[in-house]
Amino acid sequence: MSRYAPVNFPDVKLEGQFWHERLETVLTRTIPSQHKKLSEYTILDSLKLKQPPPPLRFPRHANGFTVQVFWDSDIGKWIEAASYALAHRRDEDIEAKIEAIVDDFETAQAPDGYLNCWYLGHEPDKRWTNLRDNHEMYNAGHLLEGAIAYFQVTGRRRWLDIMERYLEHIYSVFGTGPGQKRGYDGHEELELALMKLYYLTRDKKHLDFATYLINERGQQPPHFFDVEREARGDAEKQQRYVQGNYEYSQSHKPVREQDKVVGHAVRAMYLYTAMADLAAEIGDADLKRACEVLWDDVMETKMYVTAGLGPSAQNEGFTHDFDLPNQTAYAETCASVALIFWAQRMLHLDLDGKYADILELAMFNGALSGLSRDGEQYFYANPLESDGTPTRWDWHTCPCCTMNVSRLVASVGGYFLSTAQDGVAFHLYGGIDTEVEIAGTMVALREISTYPWSGDIRIEVDPKVPTTFDLKLRIPGWCEGAKVSVNGNAVDVSAAVDGYLTINRDWFEGDVVTMELPMPPVRLYAHPGVIMDAGRIALKRGPLVYCVEEADNPGGRVQRLKLPRDAQLKTEKRADLFDGVVTLKADALAIKEGDWQALYRTDPPQDEKATLTALPYYLWANRGQGSMVVWVPEVQ
Amino acid sequence: MSRYAPVNFPDVKLEGQFWHERLETVLTRTIPSQHKKLSEYTILDSLKLKQPPPPLRFPRHANGFTVQVFWDSDIGKWIEAASYALAHRRDEDIEAKIEAIVDDFETAQAPDGYLNCWYLGHEPDKRWTNLRDNHEMYNAGHLLEGAIAYFQVTGRRRWLDIMERYLEHIYSVFGTGPGQKRGYDGHEELELALMKLYYLTRDKKHLDFATYLINERGQQPPHFFDVEREARGDAEKQQRYVQGNYEYSQSHKPVREQDKVVGHAVRAMYLYTAMADLAAEIGDADLKRACEVLWDDVMETKMYVTAGLGPSAQNEGFTHDFDLPNQTAYAETCASVALIFWAQRMLHLDLDGKYADILELAMFNGALSGLSRDGEQYFYANPLESDGTPTRWDWHTCPCCTMNVSRLVASVGGYFLSTAQDGVAFHLYGGIDTEVEIAGTMVALREISTYPWSGDIRIEVDPKVPTTFDLKLRIPGWCEGAKVSVNGNAVDVSAAVDGYLTINRDWFEGDVVTMELPMPPVRLYAHPGVIMDAGRIALKRGPLVYCVEEADNPGGRVQRLKLPRDAQLKTEKRADLFDGVVTLKADALAIKEGDWQALYRTDPPQDEKATLTALPYYLWANRGQGSMVVWVPEVQ
Repeated sequence: MSRYAPVNFPDVKLEGQFWHERLETVLTRTIPSQHKKLSEYTILDSLKLKQPPPPLRFPRHANGFTVQVFWDSDIGKWIEAASYALAHRRDEDIEAKIEAIVDDFETAQAPDGYLNCWYLGHEPDKRWTNLRDNHEMYNAGHLLEGAIAYFQVTGRRRWLDIMERYLEHIYSVFGTGPGQKRGYDGHEELELALMKLYYLTRDKKHLDFATYLINERGQQPPHFFDVEREARGDAEKQQRYVQGNYEYSQSHKPVREQDKVVGHAVRAMYLYTAMADLAAEIGDADLKRACEVLWDDVMETKMYVTAGLGPSAQNEGFTHDFDLPNQTAYAETCASVALIFWAQRMLHLDLDGKYADILELAMFNGALSGLSRDGEQYFYANPLESDGTPTRWDWHTCPCCTMNVSRLVASVGGYFLSTAQDGVAFHLYGGIDTEVEIAGTMVALREISTYPWSGDIRIEVDPKVPTTFDLKLRIPGWCEGAKVSVNGNAVDVSAAVDGYLTINRDWFEGDVVTMELPMPPVRLYAHPGVIMDAGRIALKRGPLVYCVEEADNPGGRVQRLKLPRDAQLKTEKRADLFDGVVTLKADALAIKEGDWQALYRTDPPQDEKATLTALPYYLWANRGQGSMVVWVPEVQ
Repeated sequence: MSRYAPVNFPDVKLEGQFWHERLETVLTRTIPSQHKKLSEYTILDSLKLKQPPPPLRFPRHANGFTVQVFWDSDIGKWIEAASYALAHRRDEDIEAKIEAIVDDFETAQAPDGYLNCWYLGHEPDKRWTNLRDNHEMYNAGHLLEGAIAYFQVTGRRRWLDIMERYLEHIYSVFGTGPGQKRGYDGHEELELALMKLYYLTRDKKHLDFATYLINERGQQPPHFFDVEREARGDAEKQQRYVQGNYEYSQSHKPVREQDKVVGHAVRAMYLYTAMADLAAEIGDADLKRACEVLWDDVMETKMYVTAGLGPSAQNEGFTHDFDLPNQTAYAETCASVALIFWAQRMLHLDLDGKYADILELAMFNGALSGLSRDGEQYFYANPLESDGTPTRWDWHTCPCCTMNVSRLVASVGGYFLSTAQDGVAFHLYGGIDTEVEIAGTMVALREISTYPWSGDIRIEVDPKVPTTFDLKLRIPGWCEGAKVSVNGNAVDVSAAVDGYLTINRDWFEGDVVTMELPMPPVRLYAHPGVIMDAGRIALKRGPLVYCVEEADNPGGRVQRLKLPRDAQLKTEKRADLFDGVVTLKADALAIKEGDWQALYRTDPPQDEKATLTALPYYLWANRGQGSMVVWVPEVQ
């Protein structure tokens, strides 16, 4: 089977209501407002290397550094998102803002190429002394992703040149050669950025350094983080680094030996993304196998139903199997975004719908929930239950999630389909218009649907000349009873392999494929190991996980609601809500608050009849504060 | 009605199995092992004012101080507990250990009387510069409680003299006089210790200073903690004190204006204890009213069913109404112990069973759970649910709870009954033998029962000479259908007022009162505002809250269990378990783990029949690690 690769996102026009709205919001509101925030919060000032005292709202880290230590990465991510925006439509103002930032970076760069504004501004003689904690390579990775995106969209390579000089410096300092440090970053990111640079340039030195970073990670004894700690003169007993273990940064053992997903969730996802990239690029079966084992581990024991990852705020990451608390769920937006990256890489290692299912799940739920409807408010943590206390933030001490969601949405078209020499594969649906080259022929593809609100999909296939190729259609794992026809003739959907139905035929101009993906609302039950969800159900329809929010269920906190197992789940099109959504409705029961005097009593509370209305999870917390649950108690 | 006052605990012999065992364990194991820990963890070394670097296991506080800042208090509390132990039986070894500590304090004390080993050892010129954070008066309070206890038991007043010199110094520095600082401590404690000293000495200066501390708290503008911050030269923006608000230390407003229980739970309880003491002593109706309002607030909205207080680890304290998470409950042992102190004071302001009910609830549940069966392991936090992860500690970074529970148990006899000029009131039951003076006559009282395992109680009343007095018997608030008789003649229990049945008669030698306090197991339901407990029940029998622990319910985590509403709750005497306990048993359902492949699925899990066995909560986590729940899902 020929190898499938993602298409370039700017070539995919998003015509469907769902993504068109999200993209426009990000382009017109999120990205401009993020630049404003970077300025207001003095983050852009840090490029001048004359750093003002950090504003009060940024508490110092336990290790004595301010959060500025990773501000370079936020700037890099904003440029990446802004560049993706430029790919949709050029904008002189945005471009001038980026150029001003590049000016600053150019001025800041040290003669030897080193470029980290925190160290250059604060402790220039201490650079590369604490990779474990201080994010130098992480920052470099995000700056590089920004530079690549800006170059790809504008053709301007000044910043990419700056970054390549910086990389030359990094390559001279680190490696297995004589006099080199065998270092790698505590926060993975540079690995995946280098893979992107390699795809762009095909310059093998970038692939080699990415390979070095991945192979070196977790090698011991000695462990590199111990070596650099000793070099700093920190006694072991005095070390007070975050979390105090190497699982936190997935450096507890060599990556090919890792079989449990551990530590900081975003770090883990970025690492696995790069591992999957590298496994595909160099054909490393052991590395691919490690990715698969880690994938199974997270899917079978550690993922929220929303595709949120990492239950714990304490390590921003994973704990033990089935530990998925709802109200205190961390489930960082960045982690779900990064899961999408990883899933996309796995999907291109093996075109298997199980990866696309998770890509889609994370996209529509755990990632998208991080951005408000107005495009200017955020969740860093994405809990699955609220007593009404938490609400969205207009910025965050650590603004990593804000730009992760904007760069995702601004480039979302790139996740819809992939092409190979002899075929095209549809992963997502939702209304797109594009043209791809297959078997030497340009083929116009138009996918028309109101997905995710409906599973009725029409795909118009228009090759310039009649051509034989594979049209691969993802039949979502959640879908039962899918129907597909070509020009009105039914195709046997049971022939689908690994979630993809392959239609190989001679395609002619005007060919029309129709799909019916039934999406009745369903109840999901969690593995009994997830003790928090015992006796509870989550509602899902198609790719969307639903939640029960107080705004739709007035009369007290929604935790009072219980859903009988036999209650019918009805869908309701709501044109009045968020420009049109499908809600779910059911006859339910509610605990009657009644006249409680004491906190505890022996008389059971009474139930009363109630209507339960559920809204797609990603839309919660857009109508003021209020309680919310994803997992609803079920009564039989 | 004449005023009731607690009896001295050494006069109350604990004969019943329940308390006899706990007391003996504390005397023979807990108190000696605590001295060993104080030594091993270098806490006793701090008295030498040559403080070694803190051991690694004590992370530094955010404010740069090590936890040593409150070690004086731990030593004071240990001496208090050890002195109570001496009251039961003298012990040369323990006395020598206390004398050695007193030697050190004597040497350490500054010429002007100041005595805080942390400041004297570390920053002698900075004393009294940060009352907000650094516990100087808190330490003084615990040292004073220790000195009082040691004096009362041994008659040796060397340490009490040291403490009185220290108090003279404190009284000279703080107050409303010219040149004095209008300070009070961020952590209340000295207030209640001064009330004890006043009861002992009747020297009004101690009452006056306690009054000053209570009245001054929260007065503003200016707020004293702002004044001392400015004096330190800390800019407001740089202040990084714990929590960053004055609610944390109940100093946000004058105490008589406080109507919501806020902040650090132990601080709050210590304050309210002293407020109730003072209200009684000076007859301050406003202060009493404030105590009552605060009492109602905590009882109606903020107390765990176990009498645990303070849901949040973040502030070690209170959050918002009905926020009572189970698995992450902080519910510090100290807070439940301090609730007992407060309840006892309230009970002596008004002899109302509602206070005794809570005193008893906290005693048998939230406080006692903090000490292991073997008397050498502890809980600092007392969660109401566990997935099997947490377990008891053999010591704690901040060992405050360890000695709070030992001093409570070592003096528990003092909570059983109170006397007045013309009567005696029984608050607790459990098998005691004592002699009290009532109406000028010595009266021997023997209460024989296996309470809390049974509510069948026999009280033998033996006045030296026939005497008329009130015998007041607490009819617990949880008890329905109590029966009482005197010498076989039934007494009308419905005549009980505020939870106490008063029997006024001529008492003769050989009089026997019998009580039957039915204690069928009951299900408790939480106010619907407690969203975590919606659809769940807690099991209680008599004063004991029960929990469902994996050790008694093997076959997976106990969160799989569900209790049908109509399931009969059976009691079972278990002589084999912890020297004899009563467990509860019921036919229940359990979610069948079955053959789950995925983390989520649309097929509901199946239920299977199961037996649920519940154990008194205070005994959990004494048989290795395992899951536990207090609130069990109920099915109808």
